[in-house]
Amino acid sequence: MLNEFNYQQILNEVYDETIPYFQDGKVADYIPALAKVNPEQFAMSITLFNGKQYHVGVCDEKFSIQSISKVYTFTKALQLFGTKLYKRVGKEPSGNPFNSLVQLEYEKGIPRNPFINAGAIVVTDALLSYFKNIDKCFNDTLSFIQETSDNETIGFDRNVWFSEYQHGHRNLALANLMKSYNNIDNLVEDVVKTYFKHCSIEMSTKELSRSMLFLANHGIDPINGKEYVTHEQAKRINALMLTCGHYDASGEFAFYVGLPGKSGVGGGIVAIVPKVMSIAVFSPRLNSWGNSLCGTKALEIFAKKTGLSIF
Amino acid sequence: MLNEFNYQQILNEVYDETIPYFQDGKVADYIPALAKVNPEQFAMSITLFNGKQYHVGVCDEKFSIQSISKVYTFTKALQLFGTKLYKRVGKEPSGNPFNSLVQLEYEKGIPRNPFINAGAIVVTDALLSYFKNIDKCFNDTLSFIQETSDNETIGFDRNVWFSEYQHGHRNLALANLMKSYNNIDNLVEDVVKTYFKHCSIEMSTKELSRSMLFLANHGIDPINGKEYVTHEQAKRINALMLTCGHYDASGEFAFYVGLPGKSGVGGGIVAIVPKVMSIAVFSPRLNSWGNSLCGTKALEIFAKKTGLSIF
Amino acid sequence: MLNEFNYQQILNEVYDETIPYFQDGKVADYIPALAKVNPEQFAMSITLFNGKQYHVGVCDEKFSIQSISKVYTFTKALQLFGTKLYKRVGKEPSGNPFNSLVQLEYEKGIPRNPFINAGAIVVTDALLSYFKNIDKCFNDTLSFIQETSDNETIGFDRNVWFSEYQHGHRNLALANLMKSYNNIDNLVEDVVKTYFKHCSIEMSTKELSRSMLFLANHGIDPINGKEYVTHEQAKRINALMLTCGHYDASGEFAFYVGLPGKSGVGGGIVAIVPKVMSIAVFSPRLNSWGNSLCGTKALEIFAKKTGLSIF
Amino acid sequence: MLNEFNYQQILNEVYDETIPYFQDGKVADYIPALAKVNPEQFAMSITLFNGKQYHVGVCDEKFSIQSISKVYTFTKALQLFGTKLYKRVGKEPSGNPFNSLVQLEYEKGIPRNPFINAGAIVVTDALLSYFKNIDKCFNDTLSFIQETSDNETIGFDRNVWFSEYQHGHRNLALANLMKSYNNIDNLVEDVVKTYFKHCSIEMSTKELSRSMLFLANHGIDPINGKEYVTHEQAKRINALMLTCGHYDASGEFAFYVGLPGKSGVGGGIVAIVPKVMSIAVFSPRLNSWGNSLCGTKALEIFAKKTGLSIF
Repeated sequence: MLNEFNYQQILNEVYDETIPYFQDGKVADYIPALAKVNPEQFAMSITLFNGKQYHVGVCDEKFSIQSISKVYTFTKALQLFGTKLYKRVGKEPSGNPFNSLVQLEYEKGIPRNPFINAGAIVVTDALLSYFKNIDKCFNDTLSFIQETSDNETIGFDRNVWFSEYQHGHRNLALANLMKSYNNIDNLVEDVVKTYFKHCSIEMSTKELSRSMLFLANHGIDPINGKEYVTHEQAKRINALMLTCGHYDASGEFAFYVGLPGKSGVGGGIVAIVPKVMSIAVFSPRLNSWGNSLCGTKALEIFAKKTGLSIF
Repeated sequence: MLNEFNYQQILNEVYDETIPYFQDGKVADYIPALAKVNPEQFAMSITLFNGKQYHVGVCDEKFSIQSISKVYTFTKALQLFGTKLYKRVGKEPSGNPFNSLVQLEYEKGIPRNPFINAGAIVVTDALLSYFKNIDKCFNDTLSFIQETSDNETIGFDRNVWFSEYQHGHRNLALANLMKSYNNIDNLVEDVVKTYFKHCSIEMSTKELSRSMLFLANHGIDPINGKEYVTHEQAKRINALMLTCGHYDASGEFAFYVGLPGKSGVGGGIVAIVPKVMSIAVFSPRLNSWGNSLCGTKALEIFAKKTGLSIF
Repeated sequence: MLNEFNYQQILNEVYDETIPYFQDGKVADYIPALAKVNPEQFAMSITLFNGKQYHVGVCDEKFSIQSISKVYTFTKALQLFGTKLYKRVGKEPSGNPFNSLVQLEYEKGIPRNPFINAGAIVVTDALLSYFKNIDKCFNDTLSFIQETSDNETIGFDRNVWFSEYQHGHRNLALANLMKSYNNIDNLVEDVVKTYFKHCSIEMSTKELSRSMLFLANHGIDPINGKEYVTHEQAKRINALMLTCGHYDASGEFAFYVGLPGKSGVGGGIVAIVPKVMSIAVFSPRLNSWGNSLCGTKALEIFAKKTGLSIF
Repeated sequence: MLNEFNYQQILNEVYDETIPYFQDGKVADYIPALAKVNPEQFAMSITLFNGKQYHVGVCDEKFSIQSISKVYTFTKALQLFGTKLYKRVGKEPSGNPFNSLVQLEYEKGIPRNPFINAGAIVVTDALLSYFKNIDKCFNDTLSFIQETSDNETIGFDRNVWFSEYQHGHRNLALANLMKSYNNIDNLVEDVVKTYFKHCSIEMSTKELSRSMLFLANHGIDPINGKEYVTHEQAKRINALMLTCGHYDASGEFAFYVGLPGKSGVGGGIVAIVPKVMSIAVFSPRLNSWGNSLCGTKALEIFAKKTGLSIF
C-alpha cells in the first residue's frame, strides 16, 4: 500500500507548504561557525528499503549534524556494551532543560537518557575508555557513519569543533559534575573534546537518510544486509528517539509528527518510519526549543499527507 | 499476518512466564480501600477489531481504574474543547515526580501533560465548567465508559472515592497552586472531588480492553462504528500515552514494551496496538514507579512474543 | 552613651532623607483590601526601655501587620512548646522564594523557619491544637499583642481577613502539602483561616514599637517587668529575625541595616536594637522583595546615623 | 564590664564541657591530605583589643583554614573593588546545598553570597583579574593574612592544594557553569587552582584569632592601628558571616551561638564579638553540615557563659 505513494510529488507539496515558514525561527548563534550558515536553506530526503531515494531542496548541502551524532554514539555503545550501559545512563525523558543540572544532582550523576548532553557525554566517556584515545574513538564513529551512509568522504568541520569546545563551559560543567559522582572515567577535557568532535561531523540529508535506514529495519541495513544492532536494540533506540529525541519538545514532536526522530541545532532532523523508510530534513532556523522550525513543520506535513505515523 | 497468531496460546504462555513475579512489588496502601485487595491476582484481556476477545486470569474481576480514568477524561475534553485545551495543559513528559510542584511553579501553573495528576485535575476542571456540577460531569464520563465498554453496569466504589479524597492533600496542594495561577476555575474542593470520583470507577480487564478499542482504530470504535475522536486526536492521545503514560517510567515502558499505554495504581494497565487491538492487564502489586509490576512484565513478554511494537 | 542621642532630631532627619523615595515601590495589590491604602504614608516610632517614645509621620495610623504577626505567634509557640517546636519547623534561611514548595517536598514537609508562610502555618497549627478552636487561638494571640502594646483596643480587619482567605490558594497549597507529610494536625481550612486572621491584625508604629520591647530586653518587658520568653528564647527570636525576617532580602537587610527585623506586606517593619530599643516603621509601597521600600530605607539611614548595628 | 571576665578560667571550663563530644562527628575525608589529621585535637584562642590572648588546647597546631579563607579573599576584594563586586555576587543566604547548582542556573550564574564555593570562586576570579597571575594573587592574600596575624611564617600545604584540585570536579562544574553565564573572566582552571591554594593556607587558632581582630573593631586592627576596610564594610562582612558563614547551618549557628562566624572543613571556626574580641576554635571532626562539631559546641558554651551574643 505504502509503495503506492508518489513520494516525489508529496515531497514537492511538503516543500511548497513549508515555504511560508522559511523566515521564522532563528539560526543557532552561540558559536560563530554555526551562525554564518545561510539561514533559508531547506532540504528533505527519504530513503526506502530498496535503496530508492527521493529529495527536495538542497539535499547535497552538508550541515553540522550536532546532536544527531548522539544516535550514532549511542548505537555504537549499545553494540559494545549492551545493557551494562544502563547503569550509567537512564532511559527516561528529562523534562524541562532548566532542570538538567539539578536532576543530575538529585540522581547522583546519572543522566536521564543518552540524548541529552549529559547522557551523550557519558556515552562518549564509555567509548573513549574502550578506544583509549580521542582519535581512535572518533574515527570509529566516523567509519560507522561512512559505512551506513555508503559514503567514505564524510568528515567533520574543524572550526565548528574548536569553536564549540571554546564555548563549551556548560558541557564542561555537566561533565565535571558527573565526574564528581564518579560517572566519568576519563579526563573531562578529553571526553568533552571527543563529544564535540562527534557533533562537528557534517552530512547532507541524502547521506543522513541513507545512513539511518538500519533503524527502520530492526537493526539490519536493508541494502547492505549488515546487522548493526539487534532487533530489540533497534526498537529501543527508536523508543528513546520518540520519548527523548527533541529536548523539551519531544512530546510535541510525538504529538504532531508521531515518528521517532532526533534533531540537532545545526538544523537537521532524522525521523524513522519503522519497516518503511528513513527521513532526513535540514533547515537552519530553529524554533524556541532548539529544533529546526521548518524541518519539524515539513515532517508534520509529511506525516499528515502519508498517514505514516506509528500511532 | 497478525491474525495468524494463536492469541489464546500466547496469553497462556505470558501468564506462565509472569507467575515467577507474582510475589514481587507492593500493593498501593496509601488508602485502606485499595490496600485490602487480594494482591496476587492477575488478568489479561485483548480485544480485536472484529470484537473477538481473548483472556487469561481473573478477567471479570473489577478493579479501581485510578489514573486510567485520565485517558477517558482527556478524551472527553478533546471532544468538547479541541485544541483550546492546550492553553491550560501541555504535552511534554514531566520527568522526575520530585519536580511536580516546582515545575508547576516554574511554568506558572500549567501542568506538563494531562496524564500527571495536575494535568488531569485541570482537565477535570474544564469538564466541570462545562457540565456545571459534579454529578453531571461524573455521569457523562461514566456513560462514555459504559458505552465504549458496551456494559451499562460499570460503576464506582464509594469507599475508594471518600477515602482518596480524605487522603488527597497532595492533590489539593496541586489544585490550590494551580488556582493561585488562575488555571482552576471551579472550587478546588469540587474539582478534586470529581477527579477522585473518576479515579474510583471500577472495571475488569475484559471491559477495559473492549472500551479502549477506539484508540487503536484512529478514533472510531470498530465494533459499534461510532467516531469518538478524530483520526488526528486519536493519534495524539496515543502519542501522549507513549511519552507520558507511566509516570517516571514512561521511557522504560516505551523501551521495553514499545506500545502506548496508561497505568493506574489500582494495578491496571491499558495498552494500544494501533490498527490491531487493545490490551488490558491487571495485577495489584506495583513496581517502584507505581505501575503494576506483573502487568508491565506481561506486556513486555507479550510484545516480545508477538513483535507487536510500534517501533 | 546612646542616651545622648537626640532621637527626635534623628527621626526628623531620617524622614527628610526618606522623602525622595516616597514615589518608589508598589503597594501590595493581591487583595483589594490592601490595595486601597493611601500609598504615600510614612511613620516611624522608637520606644526606649524607660518607656519614652519618639515618632515621626503618621504614627497613630493603623496598618495590617501581616507577616509581623509571625513574630507574635512564634513567641507564643515558644512559650507553650519550647524546643519541641523544632521538630516541626527549622531555623535556617530559606533562600529563593521560588523554592518554597520544592524545599518543602525535599525536606518532607518541614518548613525551613517560622517566618516563611509555611513555617508560620505550622506554628499556627500547633497553637490551634492547644487552644482547640480558631477564636480562642486568635484571642490569645490578640491578648498577647494588646498586653505588650499596653493597648486593649487593638483589633483586626475583617475585610482583610476574608479577602486574604479567598485569595489564599498558595497558602492552602503549602498547608495541604505539609498535611500530606503529616505536619499539619488540624483541618487545613481552619489552620489557614487562623493564620490569616493573625495577619489581619492592625497596629500603628506607636503600638508596634512599644509591643516588641521585650525582645530588645532579653524577654522581659522593661516597662511592665513581665518575662514573656526566657533570655535564651529572646536571643533566638532575634537571631531568626536577622537571618530570616525579610524573605529573600534577609541578607540585604542584615547587610545594610544590621538589626534583627521582621517585615509585612502591609508596609510595616519592626526592628530590634538589643539592650537599647524597639523600632517600628510603616510605609505601604514595597520593594521587589515585598518589604516596605521607604521603611527599609529609613532603617538603613537610622542605623547609619546612630551606629546602632549589632555588627 | 566585659573585662571583668576571667577568660582563662572560662576557656578551661569550655574545654572541660566540650570533652564529652570529642568522639562525635567525622573528619573531612574527601581528600587524603585532610583525612590523615589527628581527629581528637581541640584548641580555642581569643584575642582582645589590647592584644592580650587566652588559649586552651593545641593553640599552636596548624590546620588547613579551608573556607575561612573566603573571609580574607572577600575582604581583599572589597578593598579593591568596593560595591562593584555586588554585580557579580549576592548577599543572601543560599538555603539548601542541594540547590547550589540550580540556584546558579536560576539566577544566571550569580552566586548568592561570597561564602559559598561559587561565590568565593567569583571573588577569586576578580582578584585574579587584578593581579594577573596565580602567584601574585595568592601572595597578596597570604601577605594580608601574615600581616593581620603579625606572623610572616604562615604558609600553605602543597599536598592539600594539589589533592583538592585533583578532586575538585564539583567546583570545576560550578566555575564552568558561571563561565557559561560570563561571570568568570579568567581560565576556569586558573581560577579554581587559585581558589584551592587559598583554601590550603595553614594557621593556628592563635594566629587566626589575632588576624581577624580588625573585623571586631570596625575594620581597624586595634593593635597595629591599620584600617583594612571601612567601618561600613566591616559591619557588612560580619553581617554576611552571620547569615551565610556556616553553609546550611548558618541559622543554627546564629540561633545557638549568636555571633558572626565562618567555618572551614579543616575543623576551624572564627567568630567575631563586635567591639570586644575575635575567637578561633579548631577541632577536626565535623557535624553533618560540615562544620567543626566540638568547635561549634565550644562557641555555644562560651557564648552562654559570657553572654557575649550580638542579640
